[in-house]
Amino acid sequence: MRLVMKFGGTSVADGERIAHVANLAKSYFDKGNEVAIITSALGGVTDALLDCASVASGNGTVLHIHEVMIDISKKHYEAAHIAIGNEVEKREIINKVLSYIDGRMDELEKALIGICYLGELTQRSIDYISSFGERLCAPILSGAIEAIGVQSRSFTGGEAGIVTDDVFGNAKPLDESYSNIADCIKPLMVDSIPVITGFIGENKSGIITTLGRGGSDFSAAIVGAAVGADEIWLWKEVHGILTTDPRIVPTARTIPVMSYIEAMELSYFGAKVLHPRTIEPAIKHGIPVRVKNTFEPEFSGTLIVKDAAPTKEVVKAVTLIRNAATINICGAGMIGTIGVAARTFSALADAGVNIVMISQGSSEANLSMVVIESQVQLAIHALEAEFTNGVVGEISSDIDICVVAAVGAGMAGIPGVAGRVFNAIGKSGVNIIMISQGSSQHNISFVVSTTNAEDAVRALHTEFELDKVQK
Amino acid sequence: MRLVMKFGGTSVADGERIAHVANLAKSYFDKGNEVAIITSALGGVTDALLDCASVASGNGTVLHIHEVMIDISKKHYEAAHIAIGNEVEKREIINKVLSYIDGRMDELEKALIGICYLGELTQRSIDYISSFGERLCAPILSGAIEAIGVQSRSFTGGEAGIVTDDVFGNAKPLDESYSNIADCIKPLMVDSIPVITGFIGENKSGIITTLGRGGSDFSAAIVGAAVGADEIWLWKEVHGILTTDPRIVPTARTIPVMSYIEAMELSYFGAKVLHPRTIEPAIKHGIPVRVKNTFEPEFSGTLIVKDAAPTKEVVKAVTLIRNAATINICGAGMIGTIGVAARTFSALADAGVNIVMISQGSSEANLSMVVIESQVQLAIHALEAEFTNGVVGEISSDIDICVVAAVGAGMAGIPGVAGRVFNAIGKSGVNIIMISQGSSQHNISFVVSTTNAEDAVRALHTEFELDKVQK
Amino acid sequence: MRLVMKFGGTSVADGERIAHVANLAKSYFDKGNEVAIITSALGGVTDALLDCASVASGNGTVLHIHEVMIDISKKHYEAAHIAIGNEVEKREIINKVLSYIDGRMDELEKALIGICYLGELTQRSIDYISSFGERLCAPILSGAIEAIGVQSRSFTGGEAGIVTDDVFGNAKPLDESYSNIADCIKPLMVDSIPVITGFIGENKSGIITTLGRGGSDFSAAIVGAAVGADEIWLWKEVHGILTTDPRIVPTARTIPVMSYIEAMELSYFGAKVLHPRTIEPAIKHGIPVRVKNTFEPEFSGTLIVKDAAPTKEVVKAVTLIRNAATINICGAGMIGTIGVAARTFSALADAGVNIVMISQGSSEANLSMVVIESQVQLAIHALEAEFTNGVVGEISSDIDICVVAAVGAGMAGIPGVAGRVFNAIGKSGVNIIMISQGSSQHNISFVVSTTNAEDAVRALHTEFELDKVQK
Amino acid sequence: MRLVMKFGGTSVADGERIAHVANLAKSYFDKGNEVAIITSALGGVTDALLDCASVASGNGTVLHIHEVMIDISKKHYEAAHIAIGNEVEKREIINKVLSYIDGRMDELEKALIGICYLGELTQRSIDYISSFGERLCAPILSGAIEAIGVQSRSFTGGEAGIVTDDVFGNAKPLDESYSNIADCIKPLMVDSIPVITGFIGENKSGIITTLGRGGSDFSAAIVGAAVGADEIWLWKEVHGILTTDPRIVPTARTIPVMSYIEAMELSYFGAKVLHPRTIEPAIKHGIPVRVKNTFEPEFSGTLIVKDAAPTKEVVKAVTLIRNAATINICGAGMIGTIGVAARTFSALADAGVNIVMISQGSSEANLSMVVIESQVQLAIHALEAEFTNGVVGEISSDIDICVVAAVGAGMAGIPGVAGRVFNAIGKSGVNIIMISQGSSQHNISFVVSTTNAEDAVRALHTEFELDKVQK
Repeated sequence: MRLVMKFGGTSVADGERIAHVANLAKSYFDKGNEVAIITSALGGVTDALLDCASVASGNGTVLHIHEVMIDISKKHYEAAHIAIGNEVEKREIINKVLSYIDGRMDELEKALIGICYLGELTQRSIDYISSFGERLCAPILSGAIEAIGVQSRSFTGGEAGIVTDDVFGNAKPLDESYSNIADCIKPLMVDSIPVITGFIGENKSGIITTLGRGGSDFSAAIVGAAVGADEIWLWKEVHGILTTDPRIVPTARTIPVMSYIEAMELSYFGAKVLHPRTIEPAIKHGIPVRVKNTFEPEFSGTLIVKDAAPTKEVVKAVTLIRNAATINICGAGMIGTIGVAARTFSALADAGVNIVMISQGSSEANLSMVVIESQVQLAIHALEAEFTNGVVGEISSDIDICVVAAVGAGMAGIPGVAGRVFNAIGKSGVNIIMISQGSSQHNISFVVSTTNAEDAVRALHTEFELDKVQK
Repeated sequence: MRLVMKFGGTSVADGERIAHVANLAKSYFDKGNEVAIITSALGGVTDALLDCASVASGNGTVLHIHEVMIDISKKHYEAAHIAIGNEVEKREIINKVLSYIDGRMDELEKALIGICYLGELTQRSIDYISSFGERLCAPILSGAIEAIGVQSRSFTGGEAGIVTDDVFGNAKPLDESYSNIADCIKPLMVDSIPVITGFIGENKSGIITTLGRGGSDFSAAIVGAAVGADEIWLWKEVHGILTTDPRIVPTARTIPVMSYIEAMELSYFGAKVLHPRTIEPAIKHGIPVRVKNTFEPEFSGTLIVKDAAPTKEVVKAVTLIRNAATINICGAGMIGTIGVAARTFSALADAGVNIVMISQGSSEANLSMVVIESQVQLAIHALEAEFTNGVVGEISSDIDICVVAAVGAGMAGIPGVAGRVFNAIGKSGVNIIMISQGSSQHNISFVVSTTNAEDAVRALHTEFELDKVQK
Repeated sequence: MRLVMKFGGTSVADGERIAHVANLAKSYFDKGNEVAIITSALGGVTDALLDCASVASGNGTVLHIHEVMIDISKKHYEAAHIAIGNEVEKREIINKVLSYIDGRMDELEKALIGICYLGELTQRSIDYISSFGERLCAPILSGAIEAIGVQSRSFTGGEAGIVTDDVFGNAKPLDESYSNIADCIKPLMVDSIPVITGFIGENKSGIITTLGRGGSDFSAAIVGAAVGADEIWLWKEVHGILTTDPRIVPTARTIPVMSYIEAMELSYFGAKVLHPRTIEPAIKHGIPVRVKNTFEPEFSGTLIVKDAAPTKEVVKAVTLIRNAATINICGAGMIGTIGVAARTFSALADAGVNIVMISQGSSEANLSMVVIESQVQLAIHALEAEFTNGVVGEISSDIDICVVAAVGAGMAGIPGVAGRVFNAIGKSGVNIIMISQGSSQHNISFVVSTTNAEDAVRALHTEFELDKVQK
Repeated sequence: MRLVMKFGGTSVADGERIAHVANLAKSYFDKGNEVAIITSALGGVTDALLDCASVASGNGTVLHIHEVMIDISKKHYEAAHIAIGNEVEKREIINKVLSYIDGRMDELEKALIGICYLGELTQRSIDYISSFGERLCAPILSGAIEAIGVQSRSFTGGEAGIVTDDVFGNAKPLDESYSNIADCIKPLMVDSIPVITGFIGENKSGIITTLGRGGSDFSAAIVGAAVGADEIWLWKEVHGILTTDPRIVPTARTIPVMSYIEAMELSYFGAKVLHPRTIEPAIKHGIPVRVKNTFEPEFSGTLIVKDAAPTKEVVKAVTLIRNAATINICGAGMIGTIGVAARTFSALADAGVNIVMISQGSSEANLSMVVIESQVQLAIHALEAEFTNGVVGEISSDIDICVVAAVGAGMAGIPGVAGRVFNAIGKSGVNIIMISQGSSQHNISFVVSTTNAEDAVRALHTEFELDKVQK
C-alpha cells in the first residue's frame, strides 16, 4: 500500500514520541508499504512562538526573545538527541540535524527581533513565525528515521511543491501543487520515507503561507491525493471518531467505518477530530482516510470512505453543540412573501453571524435559527435594523440552549428513525425547542435547553445502542 | 355585541341566499346586536366580468359585451326580485335597487366598450371592472334587509371610507381609513344595518382599487377594527376551521377556539379558509374573529382570539401541502462559511421563488428547502447560476413530495410531542424526508413522499385524537 | 435621383397646401426622379386629438367627443375636396378617400369613447390617438397625387414596414424595418409616388407606436435609408438652417451647405429646425439631407452632407439658449481628488437634471455647469445632498443667464478664432461668465447674462460676417 | 505678531543653513514676535531612509543598514556641530543633542533590521522610517537656537499634540489636535521658540503617522491655526509664487498679494509651491499665509489672504500643465440624454483616472476632457467598456498637448478679458484645441499643442504685462 501518514502535535510531542513515530513508520515501510509522513510541530512550540511574536510586537525586548530562543532551541536539541540517539554512529546524523536547527533558530530570532523593533505583527509575519514549529520538527523526525536505518529527507511544504495563493493565514493550494508534489515526493517513496511539514506552503514569490485551521490534515490530504495514496492515515491521540463525547457517555465507542458524508455531518462539532474541509482533496480523489491513535497503532481506528457498507444501526453518532442561542422571527406578513429569508440571511451574513441551524415550517409564518450564544445580540441588532417595520412582526431569542444531533447515512429512507429519536427524548422528559432534518436524511438536529442537553445525548446513545459493538 | 359580518361568495350566491343572509343579519340585530355587513359578489359574477374584459381587450365586440351585460343584468334583477320580494309594498325598494343596478350596468358596459375600443386592459381597468361584482350585490342585500323591516344603506368601500395607496390589484388601506369608517359607518349601526362592498377601496383621487387575495375578509377586518367591533364574523360555506382536510380524514372536526398564532400557522394551507394577512387589522386591535357557516348559523364555528385557553390536546390540527419539491445543497465548504444562506435565499428571491420550508442541521454541511413543485426547475437554475464553483458541492432536488404539519400552540414546552408525532409516523411505515420545527414550537412540519402523505395525516389525526370532542 | 421627401405640419396644413405638395412632388417625379413622401398631419389636428383624449379621460362626455369628431371629420372632408378637386372624373378618387376617412373616424371615436368610459389615458392610448392625424392626412395627399395623374398609394408606418420596440411614445425602429420598407416601398417608386405617414410605426404585435419628438423627420430618414435615396428632403416652413435667429439679427441668412457634425452642434437649440437624432439613419448610411422651404421650392435650402467643402468663414452660425442657470461647486479638497465629477453627475442624473454645458478648468478646484433654469433648484438640492461635508466647500448658482455658441467645423485647427470671438464680445462690453470649447473645436460656447445675450449674438454675427453671402 | 514658520528641506539642508534659520528665527523673536518653527528633514535624509528600507525589505543585509546608519549619523553629527558650534559653553547643548540623535539612530537601525529580517515593508513601517528625517533634524535646530541664547525645545508632531486617524501615509488630523497644540505649544511661545517636526503626527495608540504630500506645510497650517497665529510663514527656496514659470518667461515676477481662491486656482500646477489642501486649516481660520525665501528673508514674498485688494491687472499668473491628453466623446444620441456625463465620469473614477479639465459645449453632442498623458489609454479603455453601443458614437483622443491657464480673481465681471486672452494667443499663431472657463471666472484654461505651449504662456504674460511691477 502507498500510505501518507500525518502525525499531529501530541504524536510528535517530544523526542520519545518522535522515536516512536519513526519506528511506527519504519514498521509499515518494512512490510512493503510506501510511506510519506506529514508532521506537526513539537508540543507547545507553535504556541510559544506566537506568544513570543505577540509580546515582541508589544513591549517585548530582544533579551526576552533571546531567552525564548534558547528554550526552544534546547527543546529541539533534547528531542533530537532522544529521537535519534547519541551513539557514535549516529553522530553524523545528529550533527546535520542540529546544524539545520541552528540555521532555522537564527532566522527565527532575527524575524522576532524584526517584529520587536517594528512593533507591528502582520498576518504575513504570523505565518512566517508559526511555520518554524513544523520546520524545526521535520528534520528531527527525518533524522530519527535515518537513525534506524531507513533513508529519509525532510521538506517544507513549499519544498515539497505546495504552492498557494496569497491569503496569509488561510491559504489555498493552487492546482500546480499536485503535479509538483508528484514529481518531488512520489519517486522518493520507493526507497525512503520523506517527511514533510504540515500546515505550511509558499506563494508564487516563495513567501511562506499557512493553510489555516486543521492545516496539517489538509497537507496530508493534498500530498495523499498528489502521490495517489491508497490510504491517508491521520494519527491522532484519540481512538478514531467516537459515537459521542465520552465525557457525557463513558461507554462511547469508536465508529469503525463511515462515509465521507457522515464525516461531514459529524465533524464540525462534538469530537472535533477532523474538519471536513481538510479532507476535501481526499474526497475529490476518492482516497480513504483513516483516523488512528498513535498510542495504540494496532487499533484500526475509524476509516472514512466514499461509500460505507450498511451497518445494523441507522444512527452512528450523537453530537452536541453547547452555548448556542435560538432566534425566531415571525409575522403574518411573512406568509407567501418572497424575499424574507433572503433579507434575513443577508443581514446576518453582513454582520458576520454564523448560522448553526435553520428551521422554517410550512406555515411560513416563522423562521427560526440557531447561532452561537456570543453572536446572538449582534444577530438581533442586525435583524432589527433590517426589518424596521411591516413584514416581520416580532424578533425573539433564547439563550442557554444546546443543539443535539443524531447522525448516520443509514437513516435515509428508513421509516421510524425520527420516531425513535423523539420518543427517546420524550421519554426522558426533555422538551424539544426546535427541530431540523434536511432532505439528505443523514442528520436529525434538535435544540434542547442546556439543562437537558446531556440527558438527551445519553437517551439517544442508549436508544440506538451505540455502546454495543457495531457490525 | 357590535358585530361586523362578512358574507363570502357562496353565502350570497343568489337571491335565496341573499334573503337568507338578510334574515340572519336581522335576527342578530333584533337580539340587540349592532350589525354591519361586508358582502362579496353574486356567484360567478366576478369571473364573468373578468372574462368579458379579457375578451373585450382581445377580439371582443361591442355586441358580445352587450350580451354579457344582459346576462349579468338579468342575474341581478332576478336576485333582487327573489331577495327583496315582489309584494306591492316592496315596490319602492325594488325600484330603487333596480334603478341603482341600471346605473352601474351602464357604467360597466361603457368601461367594457372602452376596453374593447382601446384593446388594452390595464391593472387599473381590471380593478375597476372587477369591483362591479360587489357593487351590484351590496344594494340587493341592503334592499333585502329593508324589505324585512330594518333600515339599511349600501356603500362601496370607498364610500364607507377605505382610502388606499395606488397599488392597483393589491392595494393597502391608508391609516386615515379607520377614522373615516368610524365616522361614516359606526353611527349608522345604532338603528340600521349598513352593507359595505368587500374587496374594494379607492385611492386618494377616488379611483377604485382592490385589496388583493382574500380582500373581503380584509375589508371585514378593517371595518371591524374601525368601528371597534366585539367580534368579526366571517361567514363561509364551511364549519369553521377543521382539524384536517375531511376528504382525507372523514372524522375531522371543527376546532372551537384557537389563537391568532395558531391561525397563522394553519391558514396558509390545508383548509384555505383564511389568509392570515387578511385579519391583521383584527389582530392589531385584538378583536376576535369567528369563522361561521352560513348554512348552519346556529353552529358556533371557530373563534380566533388573542390568547386561546389551554386545551387538553397539544396538537390542534394537521395540515398538508401537496405538489411540493425538496432542494438540497451540500458541501464540506459550507461548514462554518458565513454567507451561504444569504446567497442561497437572495438568488431564490431574485428568481421569484417562494420558500415553503427550510431546514439546516447543525453540521452546516446541508441546506434543505421545500418549494412548490412548479418552481423547482426555476430554483435549481438560480442556485446553479449562483454557485458556479467552490463552496457548494452539489445541488439536488426531489419531487413528488408533500409537507405535513402538526399545529398547536399547546405543543410549546411539552416534552414528548415530537416523539408522539414521529412515532406515529414511524409506526405507519412512512419515511420522513425532512423535518422542521421552529423555536416557537407551534408547528412541526415534515416532508414525506406523496404516496405516504395521506397516511401520515391520518396517523397524526388518530394519534392526537383530533376526532374526539376537545375541551 | 431617388428622393424621399418629408412634408411637415405647416406644409400640409390644409387642402390648398396639400394640392401644392402634390404638384410639387409630381413636378420632381415628371423630371424623372423617383419620389416617396412622408407626411405629417393636417394643421392643428394632432393637438386637437390629444386635447380631446385628455378631456375624455377627465370629465369628458361622449357628446363632446362626438362634436370634436364632427369637426375633425369636416376638416378632412374639406381638405380632401380642395386637394383632390370636385370634378366628375375625380369622383372615384374622392369617394375612396372619404370612405377611408370615415373608417378611421369611426375607430378614432370608439377609442376616445373608450378613454372616456375608462377615465384612464395610457401612453399606449396616447400613441394610438395621436397616430390618427397622419393616418387621416396621408390618403388625402395620396388622392391629390392620383388626381393629377400620378399613381399613388398611402401607407401607415407599420404598413410600410416600420416595426419598432414597445417603448410607447418614444419607440425605436428594429433592424428588420429597413428590409421591410425596401421590399414594400422601393418597387412602387418606379411608377408611382407612395405616401407614408410620418411619426408612427407599430410593434411586433401590430400595436401602433410613435417615434417621439421629430418623429416625421425620423420616418423620412428611416425610409430614405431603406430605399437607398440619393437625398432626403425635409420640407419645412423655413428657408433651411439660418446663421442665427432672425428675430435677433434680421439679416440672418440661410447656410447653403453644412456637415452632419455641424448639424449636430447646431440643432439642439436656436433654429430648432432639426433634432440630430432624427437623421441618424441618414448619417449612418451617408445619405445627404436637405432642408427646404415648401413655400419657395426653387430655393435650394440647406444641404447637410457627410463632408462639407471648406468655406471662407470658419464660423457658420451663432446660437442662443435662453433661461439657463449656472451652478458652480468649488473646494480645495476637489484638487486631485478622483471621483468628484462622477459623484456630481451621478447625483444630477439620478435627479433627472439635463446638463447643458460643463466646464472644469485645470486647477480642478471648480466645476461649473449650466442647466435649464427650471431645474436649477432640483440640481442644487441633489448636489447638497451628495456633498454633505468635506471635499466640496461651496455650491453656488446664478440665474438669468444665456448660453451663446459659435458653431462651425471650419474652426478646427485655425488659430485666432477664439480671439476673434471673445474680442468681439469684449468690445461690445459684455462680460463672459463661463466658457467651453470641446476638443473637436466645432463649437465655442459661453455664458453671458440675459441682458447681454442678444448683443453677444449680434456681435458674433457681425464679426464673422454671417450676413454676407458665403461661398 | 505671533508667527508660525515652516522651513522646508532646502532651508535646513545642512548645518550652515540650520544656523541661518536659527538666527532668522531669533531676529524675529528679538523684535518682540512670538515664533514657533515647523521643520523638515536635513537634505537627502528622507530619501536615503526610504531607499534603505526598500533595500532592507528586499535583499538587504544588516551590514548595509549599519553602513547607511553611520552615514546618516555622521551627517547629523556634522550638522549639529556646525549649527550649534563647538565652543566650550555650548558643550552641554551639543551633548544633549548628540545623545538624542544617538537614541533615535538606535531605534531607526533596529526598525530597519526588523524590516530586513522580516522582508516586509508595510505602509505603517514606511511612515515610521520616514519620520526619522524630521525627528533627527528638529533637535539640532532647537539646539542651534539655544546656542544663540533663546530658549527652545523640540517636539515630534505627536508630542506637540497632532493626533490623526489611522490612514498611514495620508493621515488626517483629528479635531482634538487643535486644543492639544494650543495647550502644549502656545504657552511656550511667550519666552521660547518651540521647534516641531513637520509632516508627522501619531494615531490614538501613539503609532507614528505621516500627513502625505506637502505634509510640512500642512503641519504649519495646523499649528498656526491652533495657536491663533497672525501669519503663517512658509520659508522655501523660491521668491514666493511667481507670475509664471521663469524658465519660460525669465522676467516672471513674484506676486505680492493674492487671495486663498487664487492660490487654489494656481497651486496645483506651474509653480508647485504649495498644495492648496495643505493650507486648508489656515483658510478655515482665516489666517494669512506668507511664502518667503529663506535665502532672502528681507524680501516680502507672496502673502495669501482671505480677500486680496484689487490690483490693476485682472490676470495675476499664467500656468502650464505639460504631458496632458484630450479625450472627446461625441454622438447625436448624447443630445438631451440625461446620464451620459454621469456614466462617463463614474467609469473614469472607477478606473482611477484623474480629470484635469472638462468641457461640454451647449450642443451636448460632445464631451471633452483632459487627462494626464500616462492615463489616456486607461481612460479610453474604461470609456469604451462603458459605452459599448448606442448613445455615444465615437471616442477619440489626442496626446502631445498642454493646458495653459490665465488665473486671477480680478477677471470676474470684467468684460474683455477672454477677448484679450484669446486675441493674444491668436496673434501668436497658436491654435486653441479646447477651452474652459468656470462660472467663478477666476481661471481661463485652454489646451494647445505642446509645440505651441510656451509661446502661449509668453504671449499671455506679455499681454497682461505680468513682468511689470503690480500695484
